[in-house]
Parts: sequence; structure tokens; C-alpha cells
Amino acid sequence: MAEQTVRTKNIGLRGITVADTKISYIDGERGVLIYRGYKIEDLARNSTFPETAYLLLHEFLPTSQELESFEAKIREFRDLPAFVIEAMKTWPREAHPMDALQASIPLLAMADPDLADETREGNVAKAIRLIARVPAVVAAWHRIRRGLELPPPDDALTHAGNFLWQVFGKKPDEETARVMDVCLILHADHTFNASTFACREVVSTRAHMYAGVAAGVGALSGELHGGANARVMEMLQKIDRDGVTDIAAWVRERLDRKERIMGMGHAVYKTLDPRARILKELAFQLGEKTGQKKWPEMTEAIERAAMEELQRRGKTGIQPNVDFYSASVYHILGFPGDLMTCIFAVSRIAGWCAHIIEEKFGEAQGKPALYRPKAEYVGDYCGRMDCEYVPPEKRAK
Amino acid sequence: MAEQTVRTKNIGLRGITVADTKISYIDGERGVLIYRGYKIEDLARNSTFPETAYLLLHEFLPTSQELESFEAKIREFRDLPAFVIEAMKTWPREAHPMDALQASIPLLAMADPDLADETREGNVAKAIRLIARVPAVVAAWHRIRRGLELPPPDDALTHAGNFLWQVFGKKPDEETARVMDVCLILHADHTFNASTFACREVVSTRAHMYAGVAAGVGALSGELHGGANARVMEMLQKIDRDGVTDIAAWVRERLDRKERIMGMGHAVYKTLDPRARILKELAFQLGEKTGQKKWPEMTEAIERAAMEELQRRGKTGIQPNVDFYSASVYHILGFPGDLMTCIFAVSRIAGWCAHIIEEKFGEAQGKPALYRPKAEYVGDYCGRMDCEYVPPEKRAK
Repeated sequence: MAEQTVRTKNIGLRGITVADTKISYIDGERGVLIYRGYKIEDLARNSTFPETAYLLLHEFLPTSQELESFEAKIREFRDLPAFVIEAMKTWPREAHPMDALQASIPLLAMADPDLADETREGNVAKAIRLIARVPAVVAAWHRIRRGLELPPPDDALTHAGNFLWQVFGKKPDEETARVMDVCLILHADHTFNASTFACREVVSTRAHMYAGVAAGVGALSGELHGGANARVMEMLQKIDRDGVTDIAAWVRERLDRKERIMGMGHAVYKTLDPRARILKELAFQLGEKTGQKKWPEMTEAIERAAMEELQRRGKTGIQPNVDFYSASVYHILGFPGDLMTCIFAVSRIAGWCAHIIEEKFGEAQGKPALYRPKAEYVGDYCGRMDCEYVPPEKRAK
Repeated sequence: MAEQTVRTKNIGLRGITVADTKISYIDGERGVLIYRGYKIEDLARNSTFPETAYLLLHEFLPTSQELESFEAKIREFRDLPAFVIEAMKTWPREAHPMDALQASIPLLAMADPDLADETREGNVAKAIRLIARVPAVVAAWHRIRRGLELPPPDDALTHAGNFLWQVFGKKPDEETARVMDVCLILHADHTFNASTFACREVVSTRAHMYAGVAAGVGALSGELHGGANARVMEMLQKIDRDGVTDIAAWVRERLDRKERIMGMGHAVYKTLDPRARILKELAFQLGEKTGQKKWPEMTEAIERAAMEELQRRGKTGIQPNVDFYSASVYHILGFPGDLMTCIFAVSRIAGWCAHIIEEKFGEAQGKPALYRPKAEYVGDYCGRMDCEYVPPEKRAK
């Protein structure tokens, strides 16, 4: 896409190609998501989160030895610097976990001995620390806000299993840990979404990786982005509380009132998001195992009714997105609603770091050093730009 | 600019109009900068930073009464929440002030009683707290890292004067406080620069104002953006240390080595940045007053030699930018190099907040809810997207 005719203004850059990337690819028409050449279904079935993170950072899947050394580094770094825990203990307990996470990222920067090393290797070292420490930060804040200690990491558990252990203080069984692991694989990257683009925008000024990641956390917190899974769960819980029995009627009424069905529709996918299909399976698997099938069943009933109703209204291309079934999965795993967006970050940190490294060391030709778009000035003050300063006391009220 | 033909890929969005704005306007050819209809020279001569901040936030200059009430609110909010100070005391003293500032923004969010109020009024209330507290945070960290207490705010001083007092623990005279005030006016907004766009990108997901501002701080920290003034000062100090007497020869050698003259050239201005002209006057005024004319004189000598030499080499359009003389001004005021980018933030917070409010409540038609550009996948793994997963032990080294 070299020369093109586009209407760029006030369209949120939708459809505007701003860069080359080798990290991931989405075909929204066919429902395909690729990381570095691999289909997401293939990775979800066979890979683990650390291996997928390695793939995103290093371009290729690791050998057994490379994977072992990568996982050893993650284990080494996941102990948080003591001052981060001390600092957290001073924060108001009502603070939202996403604010706590955003505040923690620059604190991790302060503790990184490679902070000033702007080589590719230095950035990979920072990325590994971030991948190790973001879950620890999420767990630490959740423990501290409830007046509990953070359990020490358990090296016998997988990365995902250890995250569940540190959040809940209870060792997960293998099946549960694997469900968490697959969720982390599924959310690890998604090309130039709003948070990833924010990361790239920030480091395009040559800011360090942590400065970019903090921006990514900020963007992710918005309800139109990572905040959506929590909104889906609120919707399900309200349906449950209200004792709604006729889901189809509930869906019709909601659509009549022009309200969105949370978790349906996506900026890119016009068919089923491949991640949603896998998350649906996981939700039913976990629901079965724990006797909480009501959540995926309710979600599926909404899906069926909404698809039918939207079709009747001539609206096609609105399908369940990644947040639709992940809400049930996270809820059954025991996460409170306000931690759900943080789980997204525990996974997406891998993609953010890969994109930051690509932004800093990409091979694109002729790329200027930073993202600086234009805006059209439409101010209509004093003939647009001829206001004359008069002192305050002479101004008309 | 509705329909257009553009090459968008890998050009950092240069020249791509992404939104309407009523906040500020730059004419890079004529060297004009406008805030809400007012020329920057007019504001620098007649306005104050709080009044200019009011203008950016509220569209119009305040009446005496409105200004008084706005300034009273700023005074009310500049006391930092006690836990922010407590948290800072746990941080490593070597932490960079920009990392400390970025970490503090989400902490201020935790303390904001209007955090969840997403009305326009709620956002203006948040903006006023941020305008009041960003300077307090910068001063607090600078005091704490040197083992000193933060002096209590002095209501008899102006906003700029109080900032100098809290940073240095010494009451500035009126002239010095006014120089600081003018610097804050000059840096308060500059349309869609990288940090402002990062703020807008983040809140376009409906994230709260603080989440966006933390992203802005991250982008500002990059040496291609707000980090540049510190680099100018390093250059000046090196020239001083090396005892360079022939500035023209120094400039020629630097250009021969294809090295940039820090503080010269700008993405937008092809003529003299109007802010640079004013900062040059301020630098000479302060230099005269304090017996430190050598810094602006050295800067001017570099300017003259560089303009001549660049012209000889057929390179036009490279002129002093806002960082070129501000380095001398801040140095003479007593700021260490690593605080210089923070001063930028103490001022730009006004523009960031105005842009965040415009992004959240702008009247642009047909704007989708968030900035989500596209990227072109150029991955060349296994025929682009047909990699087959094989287990680690079977992978070729």
C-alpha cells in the first residue's frame, strides 16, 4: 500500500497503514490471527506463554535449551524489587489495579540495571524483566490492597500457574494452570491496537521501553479496549441478579434501546474472532470442572439470540470478540472484575515489548524518527487567529 | 482536507491530518504559533501561565473574577496527598525525574475524588488538579532525592514563582519568577506533537485523563521530544569544558561528521520558531542579571556559525528551535540537566489536559471511538503465515 486515497481526518486512523510489521497479522474477513507466521490456534494448542513470548521477541521458536534459559531468566526476575512493595503499601487500598499497574511500570524502570542500554540486547533484557514482573505487580497489588502478603514465587509452577498462585495464594491444579496459560497465549499480541500503537508512539521519541509500556497500560485501561472484559462480566452478573429467564427478549430490548451487547463486535474482525472460539471452549471446560456452567451457557445464549436478532435487523459482521467468553473464564478462575483488564496486560506485555523493539530497531526505510501527525485547526476565535489581548478587568463577562 | 492521496506508511504520520482541533495552530512557514486565536508573542508579553492555562482549557480568557477563582483552585490543590510523598521516599534516589513524574501521575489519579466523573466538568476539575500538582511532584522528587524536605507552597508567590521556591527552597525575586512564568506560557501547547498525540491516543479508548497524561510524560521523556533541552545543555557544557574558542570551526567539524547541532531544526518550523526568539531574549536578560552571559553568548555564536555553514552547504530551513535557548535559561535559573524535561511537563500539562478534553468531548463528526491504525504485515516466516509448530526438541538449532 504505497499511494492511496484516504479520508484520514477524524476517522481514528481506521484503515490507515502507518508502518510495516513482522510481528503479527490479522485477516478480519477470514478470522485469522498469526504470530510470526504461526496460526493462533496452533500456538494455543501446542505452545506455552513463555515460548510464545520468546517467539514474539526473537522471531523464531526457541530450541529446548533456548527455552529453558529464557524461562530461567523469567523465574530469576519475577521477584519484585523490595521498594516497589514498600511503595505499594503507601497507596490507597481503593486504587484501581490498572492505576496501580501503570504507576508500577516506571518504578520497575528505576530498578532496571539495563535501563540506559539502548542496544537490541539491552531492550530484550528489559522485555524479559517486564514479562516476569508485570504478573508479579498485579498479584502484589491485589494482595496488598486486601492486607495480605504476596506469596513467594513457586518455581515448580508454570508462568501462568505461578501467576494464579501469587494472586490467590492457592496452588492451581495442572488443568487450571493450563487454561490460564492458553489465555495468556491468546492475548499476547494483536498488531497495531490502541495500546500497542501508544507504546510505539511513545518510544518513537527514543523514550525507554518502560515509558512506552506505561502508555500501553493506560490505553488498555479504557473500556473500549482492555476494559471491555470487565464490562462483559458486569453485564452477565446483572442478568443473573435480575433473574432474567428470557435471554432473547433481553437482547431484543437492549438492541431496541440502541445499547451495545458488551463483548460483541470488533474494529477488525467481521467474522468470528479465532480467539473467541478457543475461549468459548475453555469457558465450557472450566464451567464443567467447577460446576459453574451457567456463565458460559448464559454467554452462549446471548450470542445465539444476538446473532439471530442482528441478522434480522440486517446487521452483519457483529460477532463475539475476545472479551465475550474471556469474562466467564476469568470469573470462574476467581478473578474479581477489576483485575480482568490486568490479566490482559500480563499477556500483552509480550506483544508490547516486541513492538517496542521493532519500533526502535525496525528496518523500515525512510521512516522519520517519531510519530507526529497533523491536525486541522478549526478554531473560530476572532476571525480564527486575530484575537487581541486585553487585560482581565476590561474583559466582557 | 477531505480526500487526499498520501503515502502514509513508515513516515511517522508526518503531514497526515488525523483530527480537527480548536486548541492551537502552527504556521511553520511563517513562524506563527496561536493558542485559541491568540499569538504566542502576545500571550508571552501580557498573560500569565494560569491565565493561559485557563484559556487553553476554557477556550476564552477569564474575567478578573474567573481568573481569581481559577488561581485559588490551583493554590488549593497544589498540596500533594501525603501518601505520594511517602511513596516517593521509598524510591531509589538515582531514579530519573521523568520516571518519577510518570510514576506519580497514576498516584495522583488514586487521590482524585473526581476520577470516575467523566463529564466535561469532572475533567476540567481533574485538569486543574494536574496543573497544580505536576510542579509539586517535580519539586518534591527533586527535594526527596537529595534528602531534603519539600518547602510548603507560598501563596504570596505566582504559580511559576512558587515552583522555583519549592524546587530550590529559595524565594525568587519578581523578575526571575516572571522569566519562569513566560517559559511556562511558551511551552503550554503545540498542537499534535508526539506527547499530546499519545495523550489523545490513550484517552480515545475512554481511559481517564491521568492514564493519558502518564503516556504524555513517557513520550516527552524521549530525546527527540522533550528530552532535547537537556541535550542542548550537555553540548554547551562540553564546549565550555573543552575550552573551545573557535565556535565556527567546532560547528564545521560537527557538521562534517554528520552530527546534529542539538536544538536546531524542527519537524514543523521551517523558519525561526517564535518561541525561540522570546527565549533568546530571556536568556540574555537572565545572563545579564546573574553574570552568566556566557551561555546565551555561546548559544548565539553556535546559531550564527551554524546558520552560515548550513546555508553554505545548501541546507535551508534549519533554525533554532524551542530547546536551543531554553537550555541556557533553565541552567541560569539553577535547574540541573535532568530536571529540564520536567519543566516542559510543568507547562505542557495545560495543553495535554485541553487536548484530552477535546478528544473526549470534541464535536468532530463521524469520528470512531479510538485511534487504531493499520500496519502492513511483512513477516517472511514460512511463506509468510504457514509455519507449522514442531515441539522444541525437534527444532533445528
